[in-house]
Amino acid sequence: MFFASDNTSTVHPKIMDALAKANDGYAAPYAEDRWTAELTERLRDLFQAPDALVYPMMSGTGTNAALLAAMTPPWGTIYCHQSAHVDVDERNSVPFYSGGAKLMPLTGRGSRLDPQELGLEVRKGKAAEDIHISPPAAVSITNLTEFGELYRPEDISQIADAAKLPLHLDGARFANAMAASGASPWEMTRELSTLSLGATKTGAMGAEAAVLFDPSYQEAFESQRMRGGHNLSKARYVSAQILAWLDDDLWLDLATHANAMGARLAQGIAEIGGELPYHVDGNLVFARLPRIMHVKAKAKGAIYHLADHDTGLIGDPETPLMARFVTSWSTTEADVDALLAAFVSDL
Amino acid sequence: MFFASDNTSTVHPKIMDALAKANDGYAAPYAEDRWTAELTERLRDLFQAPDALVYPMMSGTGTNAALLAAMTPPWGTIYCHQSAHVDVDERNSVPFYSGGAKLMPLTGRGSRLDPQELGLEVRKGKAAEDIHISPPAAVSITNLTEFGELYRPEDISQIADAAKLPLHLDGARFANAMAASGASPWEMTRELSTLSLGATKTGAMGAEAAVLFDPSYQEAFESQRMRGGHNLSKARYVSAQILAWLDDDLWLDLATHANAMGARLAQGIAEIGGELPYHVDGNLVFARLPRIMHVKAKAKGAIYHLADHDTGLIGDPETPLMARFVTSWSTTEADVDALLAAFVSDL
Amino acid sequence: MFFASDNTSTVHPKIMDALAKANDGYAAPYAEDRWTAELTERLRDLFQAPDALVYPMMSGTGTNAALLAAMTPPWGTIYCHQSAHVDVDERNSVPFYSGGAKLMPLTGRGSRLDPQELGLEVRKGKAAEDIHISPPAAVSITNLTEFGELYRPEDISQIADAAKLPLHLDGARFANAMAASGASPWEMTRELSTLSLGATKTGAMGAEAAVLFDPSYQEAFESQRMRGGHNLSKARYVSAQILAWLDDDLWLDLATHANAMGARLAQGIAEIGGELPYHVDGNLVFARLPRIMHVKAKAKGAIYHLADHDTGLIGDPETPLMARFVTSWSTTEADVDALLAAFVSDL
Amino acid sequence: MFFASDNTSTVHPKIMDALAKANDGYAAPYAEDRWTAELTERLRDLFQAPDALVYPMMSGTGTNAALLAAMTPPWGTIYCHQSAHVDVDERNSVPFYSGGAKLMPLTGRGSRLDPQELGLEVRKGKAAEDIHISPPAAVSITNLTEFGELYRPEDISQIADAAKLPLHLDGARFANAMAASGASPWEMTRELSTLSLGATKTGAMGAEAAVLFDPSYQEAFESQRMRGGHNLSKARYVSAQILAWLDDDLWLDLATHANAMGARLAQGIAEIGGELPYHVDGNLVFARLPRIMHVKAKAKGAIYHLADHDTGLIGDPETPLMARFVTSWSTTEADVDALLAAFVSDL
Repeated sequence: MFFASDNTSTVHPKIMDALAKANDGYAAPYAEDRWTAELTERLRDLFQAPDALVYPMMSGTGTNAALLAAMTPPWGTIYCHQSAHVDVDERNSVPFYSGGAKLMPLTGRGSRLDPQELGLEVRKGKAAEDIHISPPAAVSITNLTEFGELYRPEDISQIADAAKLPLHLDGARFANAMAASGASPWEMTRELSTLSLGATKTGAMGAEAAVLFDPSYQEAFESQRMRGGHNLSKARYVSAQILAWLDDDLWLDLATHANAMGARLAQGIAEIGGELPYHVDGNLVFARLPRIMHVKAKAKGAIYHLADHDTGLIGDPETPLMARFVTSWSTTEADVDALLAAFVSDL
Repeated sequence: MFFASDNTSTVHPKIMDALAKANDGYAAPYAEDRWTAELTERLRDLFQAPDALVYPMMSGTGTNAALLAAMTPPWGTIYCHQSAHVDVDERNSVPFYSGGAKLMPLTGRGSRLDPQELGLEVRKGKAAEDIHISPPAAVSITNLTEFGELYRPEDISQIADAAKLPLHLDGARFANAMAASGASPWEMTRELSTLSLGATKTGAMGAEAAVLFDPSYQEAFESQRMRGGHNLSKARYVSAQILAWLDDDLWLDLATHANAMGARLAQGIAEIGGELPYHVDGNLVFARLPRIMHVKAKAKGAIYHLADHDTGLIGDPETPLMARFVTSWSTTEADVDALLAAFVSDL
Repeated sequence: MFFASDNTSTVHPKIMDALAKANDGYAAPYAEDRWTAELTERLRDLFQAPDALVYPMMSGTGTNAALLAAMTPPWGTIYCHQSAHVDVDERNSVPFYSGGAKLMPLTGRGSRLDPQELGLEVRKGKAAEDIHISPPAAVSITNLTEFGELYRPEDISQIADAAKLPLHLDGARFANAMAASGASPWEMTRELSTLSLGATKTGAMGAEAAVLFDPSYQEAFESQRMRGGHNLSKARYVSAQILAWLDDDLWLDLATHANAMGARLAQGIAEIGGELPYHVDGNLVFARLPRIMHVKAKAKGAIYHLADHDTGLIGDPETPLMARFVTSWSTTEADVDALLAAFVSDL
Repeated sequence: MFFASDNTSTVHPKIMDALAKANDGYAAPYAEDRWTAELTERLRDLFQAPDALVYPMMSGTGTNAALLAAMTPPWGTIYCHQSAHVDVDERNSVPFYSGGAKLMPLTGRGSRLDPQELGLEVRKGKAAEDIHISPPAAVSITNLTEFGELYRPEDISQIADAAKLPLHLDGARFANAMAASGASPWEMTRELSTLSLGATKTGAMGAEAAVLFDPSYQEAFESQRMRGGHNLSKARYVSAQILAWLDDDLWLDLATHANAMGARLAQGIAEIGGELPYHVDGNLVFARLPRIMHVKAKAKGAIYHLADHDTGLIGDPETPLMARFVTSWSTTEADVDALLAAFVSDL
């Protein structure tokens, strides 16, 4: 019963096979290899973006930070939701890479940015025209969000219209978002300047693609990637993972499965009286359940995170506690059902 | 009718005299002079802090940034009010000096930090103990606040108790806060680790003192001051200003006068129906007045800032517009009365 | 005839097998897995360093930068050879990660640091005790050096004695250095505070271990690793590579082979009149050969780098041009002999 | 007998008068005042540079760092002499402000850059075109140099021709260089992109002008100035100093006097057998004198710095020790003669 994160899963066998196949002969280092060239073509086609630049990366944090740092001067402001991974979970990686840029956390609606609030803040920032004030530089959204909610293409268009700023998408769970939306890759990315396309959480070993829809960021991004230590010498083994991940829509199949497991879990939790404060659009389920249910589930060996730092398993058994459950490509229906059963089991 | 800022005033004659007197003979550079030695002794006595370290500075932003950067690792979090100058008006100086530290803006009560909200955020940060999360490092308060409100010593104690973190005070208007509170210098600073003591806005030419109540920050602060370009060679001329400012309580006299002018202005505004959304504790007056009154005042030559970036003088004459008025040591009663008269003058 | 770099080779089959074996079941992310725990034990034993901390990494540049940044304040000086990868080939990664620290490039003897020169510079730095001057913080050496020379344990002791500063070793080719020296792992590392242990160039897919012999760097290093984007979620796949690399001394076998190929190449080059300006201690061969020989070798398809940026294949055929040849675990005797034959082939 | 530095002198009376005169009425803050506007006009005329941008500053280090940071990306290389203040004496201010740029120290000829060496290094850097390598961004020269030597306009042209990069001049002693060269301000600056024009060492209280001959640096420089804490509120008092300094060529008169005192001292030292390893072009005299002479001079109260960190007054009386003597606008012939007499006095 592993629901702690989708990064605890193994690598999908097809991706392992691709690594074995790529392990053949000499290859130019630093992403000058033929796998990376092919990856670039594949993603340009997928996103209908013939000028896009593509870089194999192995770290979501590194990809986000190097992209955002390429999109802002050190004195700029980047707008994000207050739950954004880039602001909350990367130990100040964005001010670090950018040399001091500010992430301005917004309240949003649920776990998503609110176009109205965003528009207001950006207008204030642009109107200031005062050397004291950090000027608006970019917007970063996460899809799926940190709380598992989905931006559909029309939501992203509203964000873009409201801000009129370069837009970055943190796609650690981009496959889940795609599977949930039914949109085409072009529809989902047409407003973006840059994309962190994460495969690691959806079956890869350690593979992200940095996609620059706006190629004017090339020098800044490549420089940040290099000095950040993300210009990998044996990059072919990253690109080969993503190619296999894209083949025959494996990425969408894996995400569709993970999402289905999330939906099954959410429904089961609702049925036992749990509260679901966010839309469960994909493979992240946040739920409030009575403490006693958590005690039981943990006693049965379920692994997942309680989301409130101040509380724990000791205390009034009826108090509802928020928890985060993550399903993945390797979660089975039996896993979900076992967890649901554990909540209502005997101690 | 100059109410744009207290930094538009001249230098007080006694401070000019002190500069002339200090202009005598050779002096060791880089704050090794006898004026600076005397300043250190004077501030140690004033604050009853025999171990405090004192540095003459010329810039409030530089002082704030170098102090805060000495109090946090690059991956730390510094808590401040969402209106704090260090977060809003210094073009990302704190992430710059600190190498990436995050300022976490809090909503607060009015323009001051709310101890409860602060305590909750700090507890969450400390409880995390997760390498992803930026750990709590320090708190920064501004006294008077950016909106002219006062922290009394007991307020500062509540902040300190709630956070249990090193505490910095941005004292760009410290003299105004002292004059408003009637507290002793020791009472106002006993909870502080560091203080930016600003004299520039209260009659000096360009003089701040960085005060390290906690001398363990010495190496970090001196290094930040040096590499930031704030280790002035002819520091005697800064220290001499502050000495004259302290002599015979000149600083408190000037601040008391400025505050009285603020009170006079606030009362007059209330009498003509203006709304005062913040306590007017010192020399900063924020007020909402009908647009027509601003039109009239500006027509008569009054100089001050409208506080809302989205609006201006064109529009419905009755709409209330927020403005900021700042009085200073050189503001006269006649100045205040002229401004008040202008609001209700004929066009 | 691939001699451009040892990072153009494939992954050794035993390491591929280890990856496949590690692909089994859920594992805690962020290096909390059992492979990483085992790696820590293995390296503690190997280096006889029971307190050492070990972190799986994917990037040599990232490992070097995060380690060095943990060893210096932003205002410190790190001494290195003027050819050091950290100074020359990482696009300012060290000033970036450290927030401004200075790498002081020294002339050295050949491609290695000269203890006398180092000692003199460090003494000057320490004697200064002036806030203007960047104080000595650490020393970084590369073994094998960028030009393929070896530091033996006694050389490292001389460096350590001369500097009396924390010492970092960039071990991108540590296995080659170990194989060349015949020293024990403890002998080679006993003077070190930190080590970048690189497996990528010696048969791994993308695997480095950051080793902190001095555990006091823990918080700083873990923070730099995190905000730099090097805290990998699926770290087990990195640790598993290094474990397989260490098993049955595979690392030393692979390096011994690569070194033997380097020696064979060097001897052959000497026999055809090439000049070898550096000791060929391992798998890096720098040689000056007449331009015509390069023309021939390149015409036959040999791949390697000319080392002088200002010259190329066009020009006087007899002018000697410096080139760099790198052998690896997968270089064969036939590869070497083919290259040697190409130099003296007909056009 | 104060020869420690030209920053130990007082402020020239005419500059004090100008401060008193500027202390009149309200003035817009942050360099929006009429003194600064006049200063801009005056310097545009002086340098025949109608598009130049001018900023009043109070710190040479801050001016240098903010200018150079505006001229390079964080991953760039700035070339300077190995004795340059920006590299040696500013505690890593340039990598700090620039977010990681590298200063490459060159050996030069004497204390000046050697155009040939510079050209070679820049060509190597430009030819690399490798993401690993930090690309050439700018050159910084100091005039007078740290050892008191002069670049004449033709020397600067050679530097500019060799590098073909934006050129910065650290003019902490620009007035001394001008007085020594007899060149026109235009001749001395026509190759420059930026200039740190220092008045502090030549009679001001604390006043530098940052001059951007290339106005394309405006946004970057103003941003660095702001976040560095160098956008002074009461800037009129800085600009007023420089205006008075320029009036009636006061700056050149003061520098001419200081230079004459330097020449007198150098001649006297030569006559008593001292060795002068650098050309004494202005007000900096470096000389090797037998230790016994230093003992005598210090016993008579002379204040100056021994330049070798490893030695002191204890030891063989005949060993020559290098010292630095600085004359200033307030040094008198009697001061110089007293120092010369002290060297050969009885103990």
